[in-house]
Amino acid sequence: MVAIVDASLTRFGKRKEDVFQLAKESSLPIIRRFKDIDFVLISNSYSGEFNNVSGINNLISSYLSLDEIPSIRIDNTSGSGGSAILVAKSLIDSGQARAILVIGVEKMSTMKTREVTSVISSLLPPRERSIGISLPSLASIMTKIYMRRYGASREAIAEVSVKNHWNGARNPFAHIRKEITLEEVLSSPVVADPLRQYEFCPISDGAASVLITSDEEALSYTSKPVFIKGVAMGSDSSHITDREDILEMKAVKIAGELAMKRAKVERVDFAELHDMATILEIVEGEALGLLEKGKGWTYYLNGMTGVDGEIPINTSGGLNSKGHPIGASGIGQVIEGFLQIRGEAGERQVKEARVGLTVSMAGFGNSATAIVLGDEI
Amino acid sequence: MVAIVDASLTRFGKRKEDVFQLAKESSLPIIRRFKDIDFVLISNSYSGEFNNVSGINNLISSYLSLDEIPSIRIDNTSGSGGSAILVAKSLIDSGQARAILVIGVEKMSTMKTREVTSVISSLLPPRERSIGISLPSLASIMTKIYMRRYGASREAIAEVSVKNHWNGARNPFAHIRKEITLEEVLSSPVVADPLRQYEFCPISDGAASVLITSDEEALSYTSKPVFIKGVAMGSDSSHITDREDILEMKAVKIAGELAMKRAKVERVDFAELHDMATILEIVEGEALGLLEKGKGWTYYLNGMTGVDGEIPINTSGGLNSKGHPIGASGIGQVIEGFLQIRGEAGERQVKEARVGLTVSMAGFGNSATAIVLGDEI
Ligand SMILES: [Ca+2]
Repeated sequence: MVAIVDASLTRFGKRKEDVFQLAKESSLPIIRRFKDIDFVLISNSYSGEFNNVSGINNLISSYLSLDEIPSIRIDNTSGSGGSAILVAKSLIDSGQARAILVIGVEKMSTMKTREVTSVISSLLPPRERSIGISLPSLASIMTKIYMRRYGASREAIAEVSVKNHWNGARNPFAHIRKEITLEEVLSSPVVADPLRQYEFCPISDGAASVLITSDEEALSYTSKPVFIKGVAMGSDSSHITDREDILEMKAVKIAGELAMKRAKVERVDFAELHDMATILEIVEGEALGLLEKGKGWTYYLNGMTGVDGEIPINTSGGLNSKGHPIGASGIGQVIEGFLQIRGEAGERQVKEARVGLTVSMAGFGNSATAIVLGDEI
Repeated sequence: MVAIVDASLTRFGKRKEDVFQLAKESSLPIIRRFKDIDFVLISNSYSGEFNNVSGINNLISSYLSLDEIPSIRIDNTSGSGGSAILVAKSLIDSGQARAILVIGVEKMSTMKTREVTSVISSLLPPRERSIGISLPSLASIMTKIYMRRYGASREAIAEVSVKNHWNGARNPFAHIRKEITLEEVLSSPVVADPLRQYEFCPISDGAASVLITSDEEALSYTSKPVFIKGVAMGSDSSHITDREDILEMKAVKIAGELAMKRAKVERVDFAELHDMATILEIVEGEALGLLEKGKGWTYYLNGMTGVDGEIPINTSGGLNSKGHPIGASGIGQVIEGFLQIRGEAGERQVKEARVGLTVSMAGFGNSATAIVLGDEI
């Protein structure tokens, strides 16, 4: 087993710093504290497209004066962070490394929104991309099907955004730090009918870093390690039109079940999900069994997913409010878990946060990595 | 320990097929033979730049109808293949996967040579890139220093290319399948003085795939598994100007020594090195102790690195003749080792090829992965 023994991140948002400066800002506190890092993993998807940089793992290592430390870039689009954690765990469990610095980073604001959307559409299969499908349009279709099938109210779905912005307002590292009302969500510009601007993640720059060691060595780094109790990946068709049921989120479901089984836990105290759009938080929550199938939307009418609710989801603010710098997001999620379990989440602290689940998802759910974190082995 | 239990590759070269078709051509024979693949690693660096595709691991999986199999993209520029083998080994050793299909692929000929060179220059640190340094110009500087310091003859360095083309002419999967003479090398156009066109790898499309399992399970896949006896990475400054000695190839040296130590072997029967330029094969051979320091060039005057020589190097034809589709190269190297150790290398078969070494290098040596292959555990 492995543990997270240190964590550090930048504020997510439109940042003036370049990709190297962001990576440095997030990792320098860790590098200063620990001198024995022996492997670096860079979770990043679009440095070529957004920053005109390749081999970014080696260039970041050099920028950090970690030239002599081997490094690899791990990419799985929006799910890169989860994949990097999985690889880090394997490298340590198999004895290839002892102390791995995982840096998730993405600098996206070099391009205009329309260009960013076009670059990210390159993850869609050619057949669907060629007819103009985009991630927001898929979220739109999913919302309509969900509302029709389960009689979900429009307001309930928008409440995901209200809750996540309430949380994000309390997270000093979040991109959008302001509470918003239901009325504000529902009167924001339509992006992909019926979903509106406040229901999608913003385009963010940012970086997030963790240090991972074996559980045996963890206590020599910190008195409060957070253990990675189970990690698992699931996969699903990249062609949405090939899926039996667009609401099923098979990759998320498989990853979640297997990670829980490997962690030997049956319930969690909180979760960080991939809420690129509001609707995704609901259907992922259902796929994971955190929310009752078909009734996930009702939880949002009763505050049950809030910080003090029955099953707090996205206490960090989620992608929706915290932001979604692609390669950094999955690392940001485990950092929220790290802070919650250590009792260091400030105003958004969940009571009795001992076991948490994070789900790092790629594309529109063609890949997902679930990670169960806990305060004991 | 893990083993390579199957291998398959495309012909390298200017191919009309796209990146998906190449990946399929190389992996389909393996997928047809074995149904229990449970993880896919894609070794690829430039799908965004060359093919306008991101999340290529998931798109290739879908294209291969392996939708339900988790996948990750591994990138380390020219050294991606070696890094992917290291990750595959760790995933299996740690119990995260049992049978991993590693596909190395790159489709480069979508762009003109000048554009390809510009894209690849994006791996250089901004400080050096901004003054117009390119990989060929670094090879030029290295050659001049080597010749001056060790009194190496110009002909000896060119002989690397003659030998590699002799080998490549005997490799049905090589890009350039023709023998060339010393005169032809030395009269080919100057690329970066004193190095000439035949002394650099061509720009190639191609894909190479291997199936990796644990050593315990290997015999249920094949009667002739090739064991990965040791893998190690080394790293060095990305700033060439920061290196104490440009001829030292520190990343290669460290990786080689550690991989040999882990493999518990003291000598190898053959090696596949990263001969992006002729001079690199010589200095890498010296860094690895295969060739005597400062006298590596003399080996090429006596045929000592040929198929029937004392230490055969790049029997596949190397990057120089076989071609260098970035993400596929490191996988192509281990496939040559697989074929040699199984006695299936045809006209270029090394006698008594029982232990081999491959070195997958990134950039101009800022990262290297050494892999020791053998016929027994
Ligand atoms: Ca390096």
